[in-house]
Amino acid sequence: MATKLSAQYLEGFVKPQECEAMAPQVKLAHEALHAGTGLGNDFLGWIKLPTDYDKEEFSRIQKAAKKIQSDTDVFIVIGIGGSYLGARAAIEFLKSPNYNALKKDTPDIYFAGNSISSTALAELIDLCEGKDVSINMISKSGTTTEPAIAFRVFRELLEKKYGKQGARERIYCTTDKAKGTLKKLADEEGYETFVVPDDVGGRFSVLTAVGLLPIAVSGCDIDALMSGARKAQNDFMEPDLNKNDCYKYAALRNILYRKGKEVEVLVSYEPCFTMMNEWWKQLYGESEGKDQKGLFPASVVFSTDLHSMGQFIQDGKRLLFETVVLIDKAKREIVLNEDKDNVDGLNFLAGRSMAYINEKAFEGTVLAHTDGGAPSMVLHMEEATEFELGYLIYFFEKACAVSGYLMGVNPFDQPGVESYKKNMFALLGKPGYENEKAALEARLAK
Amino acid sequence: MATKLSAQYLEGFVKPQECEAMAPQVKLAHEALHAGTGLGNDFLGWIKLPTDYDKEEFSRIQKAAKKIQSDTDVFIVIGIGGSYLGARAAIEFLKSPNYNALKKDTPDIYFAGNSISSTALAELIDLCEGKDVSINMISKSGTTTEPAIAFRVFRELLEKKYGKQGARERIYCTTDKAKGTLKKLADEEGYETFVVPDDVGGRFSVLTAVGLLPIAVSGCDIDALMSGARKAQNDFMEPDLNKNDCYKYAALRNILYRKGKEVEVLVSYEPCFTMMNEWWKQLYGESEGKDQKGLFPASVVFSTDLHSMGQFIQDGKRLLFETVVLIDKAKREIVLNEDKDNVDGLNFLAGRSMAYINEKAFEGTVLAHTDGGAPSMVLHMEEATEFELGYLIYFFEKACAVSGYLMGVNPFDQPGVESYKKNMFALLGKPGYENEKAALEARLAK
Repeated sequence: MATKLSAQYLEGFVKPQECEAMAPQVKLAHEALHAGTGLGNDFLGWIKLPTDYDKEEFSRIQKAAKKIQSDTDVFIVIGIGGSYLGARAAIEFLKSPNYNALKKDTPDIYFAGNSISSTALAELIDLCEGKDVSINMISKSGTTTEPAIAFRVFRELLEKKYGKQGARERIYCTTDKAKGTLKKLADEEGYETFVVPDDVGGRFSVLTAVGLLPIAVSGCDIDALMSGARKAQNDFMEPDLNKNDCYKYAALRNILYRKGKEVEVLVSYEPCFTMMNEWWKQLYGESEGKDQKGLFPASVVFSTDLHSMGQFIQDGKRLLFETVVLIDKAKREIVLNEDKDNVDGLNFLAGRSMAYINEKAFEGTVLAHTDGGAPSMVLHMEEATEFELGYLIYFFEKACAVSGYLMGVNPFDQPGVESYKKNMFALLGKPGYENEKAALEARLAK
Repeated sequence: MATKLSAQYLEGFVKPQECEAMAPQVKLAHEALHAGTGLGNDFLGWIKLPTDYDKEEFSRIQKAAKKIQSDTDVFIVIGIGGSYLGARAAIEFLKSPNYNALKKDTPDIYFAGNSISSTALAELIDLCEGKDVSINMISKSGTTTEPAIAFRVFRELLEKKYGKQGARERIYCTTDKAKGTLKKLADEEGYETFVVPDDVGGRFSVLTAVGLLPIAVSGCDIDALMSGARKAQNDFMEPDLNKNDCYKYAALRNILYRKGKEVEVLVSYEPCFTMMNEWWKQLYGESEGKDQKGLFPASVVFSTDLHSMGQFIQDGKRLLFETVVLIDKAKREIVLNEDKDNVDGLNFLAGRSMAYINEKAFEGTVLAHTDGGAPSMVLHMEEATEFELGYLIYFFEKACAVSGYLMGVNPFDQPGVESYKKNMFALLGKPGYENEKAALEARLAK
């Protein structure tokens, strides 16, 4: 049950002794993580989150979700980075990338405030026309530019539509428990608030209110999601990588990195995993990509991308390995019928399920890529349920922390994200950034 | 007007003499391309396509699009790889990623047959319930597994719903001009057909009927699209890279590759460019990723991914460079209002358009990344119109061909795509592949 790692396709790429050599490093990383003695130890709240979460808030999330389901046609979730990717990924994975288009008795859900595109924002406003709207503003501080802009626009829209008081009942804020602009505003206005815990970084926050409220609004079972994570929390306590698939994954990706495989491609055979790929890319890219180190995280969805990136993976520059997330049981099944004329030559597949064909596509591909010099790891998950997803999320989070320690970085900070912001603020003339402006403009004018 | 390359942010990464050194190689590549003496010279039809296309067929495409707009609620486009990405990318870019959700007087458009996911296919069938449906099957041969499965399912659905005769008027096939399974079936059944030219490979086919019919159905002006490409065809005839931005881009990416920048990240600041990124990844990945060579193509959309991959790009392993596609004029504009309380601290932006803020985000980012050791090229396009897109498509196609020749590969084949197919067919027991089956199964059972 739940995520299992298969390393059989690494044969010829990684020798058993390489894992043996990593075992003591993994044990050290495990101890640093659990003792809280490693880098970034202010941000370890996610480790115990599946058991140690605020049960009262969890009930309020479920209650708020019910209210939103009853009085809302369009639910706008405002946030960027970790305040956006987890919820969207979970909803698309568990429900569908076509969630909004499909018939359902839950609200449409759109994500705003994750870009500075006026075109994208203007379209979301169009989509709200004539609909009952609620919003969830997610920001630790409330001042991150992208969500703050979207919140300003949508708050105005709601207040125009429902009046100040009506809007209050449709605005939900997920933010700091005590301080910051958004918390202050929410308290003054009487918006319902949920908490971004102090010790859980954005990219590790999908199992807090940040992810849970939107996921619950979509009709997913967040209790099952937490149960899955809880099982993973329990399963991955073992310091020995030979008994811990989560740590084994962390070790193997570091082994491959150290021998020059500098790009990790996350692979799925289900289109509904597309945004989970994006969630994973933030988790790993932001955790490891620092101090001029780190595996470059990329992603594909097969079989579509076998007709795109497949050529490169098969036979291009040998700089990559693959990690395949395989879902063993399809959500829905279609069996191919016999066609009496067999014009397309597919009758040899008649009576076969598409899931069976998809499985053979995986098997054929993994062997072809192995032959081509692209090693693969395989993570099996049983099915696309809340429980299994909670398990997978925790698996990836803990593997990421251990992997970062093996890499020799602080997996919990993101100093590089500030660099563009500082420049942008200076160029925009934000008070406090006046000194840098002229120098930056001179460089641009060259 | 139209795509312009800016190389100013390469200062410190590429010396002028490096371009000089490449100029003769570029001239050679240009000559091989135009004389048809290079590798893959059976597939050069795309070069003259913007001037040399079948005008009668073009009119039929426009007529078919009008008919589909008049009698269809949901238009299902069946194809994989190059028979899928170009049309979807163009529609999302020119209309919107939310095209289906937005109010419009053109049909919803969904893409099928680009995976083996039964879940995805079952959902598309649901979305057709109670709607008038037409389909466009796009396949040179008609036997590619993914689209063939979807076509079998949707053809059955249409014949059940409209009868054999009614279905005939709703099935459009884009395929070989004379031979192959799909052409034969279409002729027998009397489906309207359009042509995948013999000398245009899938990833170069968006400006043939492959891309044009779905794009026209969405209400885009395909005349303007071809005009833009025509202008690019004319503009990029100059062999000297100093006078040809398209060749300069090809040269610079090879220069960066040869000094160890092995990943190219295509960057946009507009979410509607997301699928154009995917189109570009196929074009470059499949053209160059062979013989253990090639730039690994990756992509991001900023500013959202500044809060995800941004950390890695700023300060991770220095293996990458960026190519930014910047759209100078936003499709729709939003100006930030003053807020009397200024709770979010955004009043310094009051009166500013989001496009202006987005531009400053780009400027701040490009300087930050330069400082961090990630070089950037910038492609400016004026606005997101059909004309400009046609121009950009041709720019990328021709640059890709020249770049492939500089890399020393055949940019027009994709031998690696066959490897997984052969294995898959053997594992599925396809007639003719019996010999390989047992050996593959033995490897899997280990």
